[in-house]
Amino acid sequence: LVEVEKEANIRNAETAINRAVASISPKVEMLVLPEIWNSPYATTAFPHNAEVVPNVGGTLVESLSPSTSMLCSRAKELGIWIVGGSIPEKEIDESGNAKIYNTCTIINSSGEIVGKHRKMHLFDIDIPGKMTFKESDSLTPGSQATVVNTPWGNIGVGICYDMRFAELGLLMRQRGCRLLIYPGAFNMVTGPAHWQLLQQARALDNQLFVAACSPARGTDGYIAWGHSSIVSPWGEVVASTGADPDTVVADIDFDQVDTVRQNIPISMQKRVDVYSLQDYKA
Amino acid sequence: LVEVEKEANIRNAETAINRAVASISPKVEMLVLPEIWNSPYATTAFPHNAEVVPNVGGTLVESLSPSTSMLCSRAKELGIWIVGGSIPEKEIDESGNAKIYNTCTIINSSGEIVGKHRKMHLFDIDIPGKMTFKESDSLTPGSQATVVNTPWGNIGVGICYDMRFAELGLLMRQRGCRLLIYPGAFNMVTGPAHWQLLQQARALDNQLFVAACSPARGTDGYIAWGHSSIVSPWGEVVASTGADPDTVVADIDFDQVDTVRQNIPISMQKRVDVYSLQDYKA
Repeated sequence: LVEVEKEANIRNAETAINRAVASISPKVEMLVLPEIWNSPYATTAFPHNAEVVPNVGGTLVESLSPSTSMLCSRAKELGIWIVGGSIPEKEIDESGNAKIYNTCTIINSSGEIVGKHRKMHLFDIDIPGKMTFKESDSLTPGSQATVVNTPWGNIGVGICYDMRFAELGLLMRQRGCRLLIYPGAFNMVTGPAHWQLLQQARALDNQLFVAACSPARGTDGYIAWGHSSIVSPWGEVVASTGADPDTVVADIDFDQVDTVRQNIPISMQKRVDVYSLQDYKA
Repeated sequence: LVEVEKEANIRNAETAINRAVASISPKVEMLVLPEIWNSPYATTAFPHNAEVVPNVGGTLVESLSPSTSMLCSRAKELGIWIVGGSIPEKEIDESGNAKIYNTCTIINSSGEIVGKHRKMHLFDIDIPGKMTFKESDSLTPGSQATVVNTPWGNIGVGICYDMRFAELGLLMRQRGCRLLIYPGAFNMVTGPAHWQLLQQARALDNQLFVAACSPARGTDGYIAWGHSSIVSPWGEVVASTGADPDTVVADIDFDQVDTVRQNIPISMQKRVDVYSLQDYKA
């Protein structure tokens, strides 16, 4: 049953990608999927739906990662970049133990995996009576920030809870990012309170575009807030959707990044004699 | 004329302080003034209105700083803490040259200066056709963050443009702050776009209260956006005003800081193996 469900999720995502690219004009150049799109968002479901995802430069085996294979095939055939939301990733260590990560692959328009981000900050929160979730029950966190060079400049990727950490945004800005992409699935408590505000905070503090892509609301299990959006380097929400299945489209003008950074040159005015953000794995 | 104007500004502020404390119930415990309240906000006006403000532990001379003396006198008589917005501060170096700072004094309920913040990030921006201002034409920046221990815990103070620097907020949080106070005077371009958003970003990212106090709108010279506000550790605007002269009042419950930090424990989940904010003058 689980495999049937995952197979259906993969076909649904494939159809949605094809439909979006066919319906959007001018040509789509990059497409973003939401967090954990091939599986229910439940720690118990992650192991069953986890796939073996190669590192950058590694070999993709379709039978080991049907979800990633579909994305690579779509990227190549449609000639688009895909930031593949996330899926549970399985890694078997030398002792035969499996670790599960929450992983986003970044795929170029030749269908090659050019980046892989493992969610660095696991979502372990406890709001008594409202929302309790402990991702670390089944997941292992990644240990590095992910910045990918693209035809549009450097793009940084974080997953959901990663967005709460201002330091990670600052780090990706220091590595030259002009766009941060966060697949995410905020819930019905933190979503209305923080989903959009955090995107605006990351965008404004770092003077870059932010795109955040959520699953639609759904009706059972983990209920996501939805509201995928794109925010400008000025902190304005330039496109967003509601809770229903939808595609958010924006024509991103990267000149706006340069203009905002020239007008309010905070990156050159930082007081590095007083503070600085250390990037230990740069 | 300049001196007459400053004297009038001091008397106006004194009256406003007395009136606020008399009209607010229960008792006011801390009061915040806006940025540059004793002078027009113009680089040419700063030297004329600048005063000699002692460091913490130094001796206040009334004739050298009538503005600060009024604040200390109010704090002592009314038994309140005052975060004294800011005034131009003059410092004469060994060679007899004057440096001017944009300075906030923090005064306890005994009327003693317990903190002095010199704006660290000078407001030099250029938005062609909309807003150009170069504070560094006449001002020298301060070189340290300011955190003061109070009966309510540690409180951090930044001035206006300091608020744009996420690192300074993170640094003050690392030093244990539960409330950040920003006297500021955003303008009619950056005010509507960023004033409230930045307060919310600092509050949410650091899970603490933020209070920001602006001059009222005014009609000539530098036109401030106004809209003084107080934001909760959850990122909600709990009190704010419009553009007219007004007093914003909030009963701050610091238990809320503890609750938010327990529910979403980001400060314990930072990935200090990947990044960390260095505080060089801690």
